Amino acid sequence: MAQVRNKQVLLRNHVTGFPKESDMNIVESTITLKLPQGSNHVLLKNLYLSCDPYMRNLMNKPEGPPNSRAYTPGSPLTGYGVSKVLESGHPNYKEGDLVWGFTNWEEYSLLSSAQILFKIEHTDVPLTYYTGILGMPGVTAYAGLFEVGSLQKGDKVFVSAASGAVGQLVGQFAKLNDCYVVGSAGSKEKVDLLTDKFGFDGGFNYKEEPDLDAALKRSILNMYVIIQIRHFPEGIDVYFENVGGKTLDAVLLNMRLHGRIPVCGMISQYNLTEHEGVTNLAQIIYKRVRLQGFNFMDWVHLYPKFLDFLLPNIREGKVVYVEDIAEGLENGPSALVGLFSGRNVGKQVLVVSHE
Amino acid sequence: MAQVRNKQVLLRNHVTGFPKESDMNIVESTITLKLPQGSNHVLLKNLYLSCDPYMRNLMNKPEGPPNSRAYTPGSPLTGYGVSKVLESGHPNYKEGDLVWGFTNWEEYSLLSSAQILFKIEHTDVPLTYYTGILGMPGVTAYAGLFEVGSLQKGDKVFVSAASGAVGQLVGQFAKLNDCYVVGSAGSKEKVDLLTDKFGFDGGFNYKEEPDLDAALKRSILNMYVIIQIRHFPEGIDVYFENVGGKTLDAVLLNMRLHGRIPVCGMISQYNLTEHEGVTNLAQIIYKRVRLQGFNFMDWVHLYPKFLDFLLPNIREGKVVYVEDIAEGLENGPSALVGLFSGRNVGKQVLVVSHE
Repeated sequence: MAQVRNKQVLLRNHVTGFPKESDMNIVESTITLKLPQGSNHVLLKNLYLSCDPYMRNLMNKPEGPPNSRAYTPGSPLTGYGVSKVLESGHPNYKEGDLVWGFTNWEEYSLLSSAQILFKIEHTDVPLTYYTGILGMPGVTAYAGLFEVGSLQKGDKVFVSAASGAVGQLVGQFAKLNDCYVVGSAGSKEKVDLLTDKFGFDGGFNYKEEPDLDAALKRSILNMYVIIQIRHFPEGIDVYFENVGGKTLDAVLLNMRLHGRIPVCGMISQYNLTEHEGVTNLAQIIYKRVRLQGFNFMDWVHLYPKFLDFLLPNIREGKVVYVEDIAEGLENGPSALVGLFSGRNVGKQVLVVSHE
Repeated sequence: MAQVRNKQVLLRNHVTGFPKESDMNIVESTITLKLPQGSNHVLLKNLYLSCDPYMRNLMNKPEGPPNSRAYTPGSPLTGYGVSKVLESGHPNYKEGDLVWGFTNWEEYSLLSSAQILFKIEHTDVPLTYYTGILGMPGVTAYAGLFEVGSLQKGDKVFVSAASGAVGQLVGQFAKLNDCYVVGSAGSKEKVDLLTDKFGFDGGFNYKEEPDLDAALKRSILNMYVIIQIRHFPEGIDVYFENVGGKTLDAVLLNMRLHGRIPVCGMISQYNLTEHEGVTNLAQIIYKRVRLQGFNFMDWVHLYPKFLDFLLPNIREGKVVYVEDIAEGLENGPSALVGLFSGRNVGKQVLVVSHE
């Protein structure tokens, strides 16, 4: 049976500190593009892959209880992506279907039916959107803000990593609900996007605050001033947490009574061998604040409702989405690593094949 | 009009670090035991006062937004207590009523009707109970465990400060719900109470763990071993947080998927000028944990339901309560200060007058 080339991105070694491109390598294996007789697996051609911060944690040497998703040196990375079904032994999928879900970083993947794959029904929007606004990051923003964050009309909302895959949606969804929204990001270009493209009420570049890298106390006081005086004179109702560390510590001082902090990620901490200490947690008692970690997996059931909400908003141009697109599987390591220095502007997508 | 002596406990100065008896002073003022004509105030004879950890925070020099309850040097402390109504201009109360609620640390108090006062309807239990098991700490344990902590039958529950005013109830309420319960406390005597008197499944003395005061990382690993291996091989569903700091950091490593952490207090931090950093917060993302600060004020409406639940359990001896009773207002400063060295065994009550 004919075999074809199957380029793959493998983890070379477990990672400590900031990931480097050399922690991964590109190999060319081969694959038979035919399901074994009687298999209920699905054979996919991968088109677009999603680069997400949580992937960094899967590169760690596992400690404590095993994480079934942790990457293994010598095996391909895994992640969300958009794929085309080449052959299916599973009744839910058939040849030619477009799907998005959990796949491998390679040209072709043979997946067991247990994987999460959603059939793509709407193709009048860019297919890459199913790695972002219409995929895992979209549901994450939606569930985090409305369900975990219990967003109320008029709330004062702060979001960090605000121009990222999730952050840009959090702000726009909150604006659709008549909220006041401010975001933080790591460059002038990104901050400009917040107000000029996404309609935020304000934004600031956390890297430009002179004392932010000084002693923790000083930084907090400084961030406190920025957030409190400049943007939230009345405090914050909902902080959508993407970064952790010093930003969280500063925000805690500025939460309003009964504030909510949906905790989606803590990207500032993932590359540290010892995480920064958060010293202002007692504030959640005084202000009766709810801090809740969550991820997409618990909110998958909202996907149909989410599409009903979002598709019309996309079609009418009321919600927009900025993507940063890297071409070719061989550029995967660089695209992924770039997330942690903030090189990407908007959702980082990796193109494996345009069809 | 006749005036009588009114002994008071005043705050002498704002407090930094551990509070000392000398941060308070006892004075003898006078009071007229007669309401002004047409007043809607309530004149109380205070019987029992409650010593609670949150009072430490009210001794700080206020920073940031004003806290209406913060203590003022030269004025009496305030707190929960049990009192007898001497005269009332308010229609809800009449002479001779027994009430519990927010009063002043003095023999007699003239309170505006805006204060929270609950009429005591059940006197077949010790009146002191209304400073503890049937008062603010009781509702705090009940609301924190069942509402904020969403306790489920069979949950694995850990509670710190477990022999304290709130902790001893948390454990007993959880046992009534067929949970597995372990507590931490600061002496052998207290740990023995947990298993021998309150029916906990286990307990440990956090002060006896040799490395707990060593470097943070070491301590965490140590606590981790203690909690994980000895008591929670499958992890913790609900951690009822009373202490903060290192204990919280250790617990975060041991939470189960969808665990809940109702945050009632962080007594280990109240006397520190700089709070300890909590480094394991990212665990709440991986485990999708909810950490929620709360206090009694948001759950006052549950009081009737709470009494319906608790009174029969007290009468049948299914829930017991240990109190540590200090006699005389002049011993108030010492009783209050003792909370922070863990001198009290059980709920610390201060007797102003037995009738």
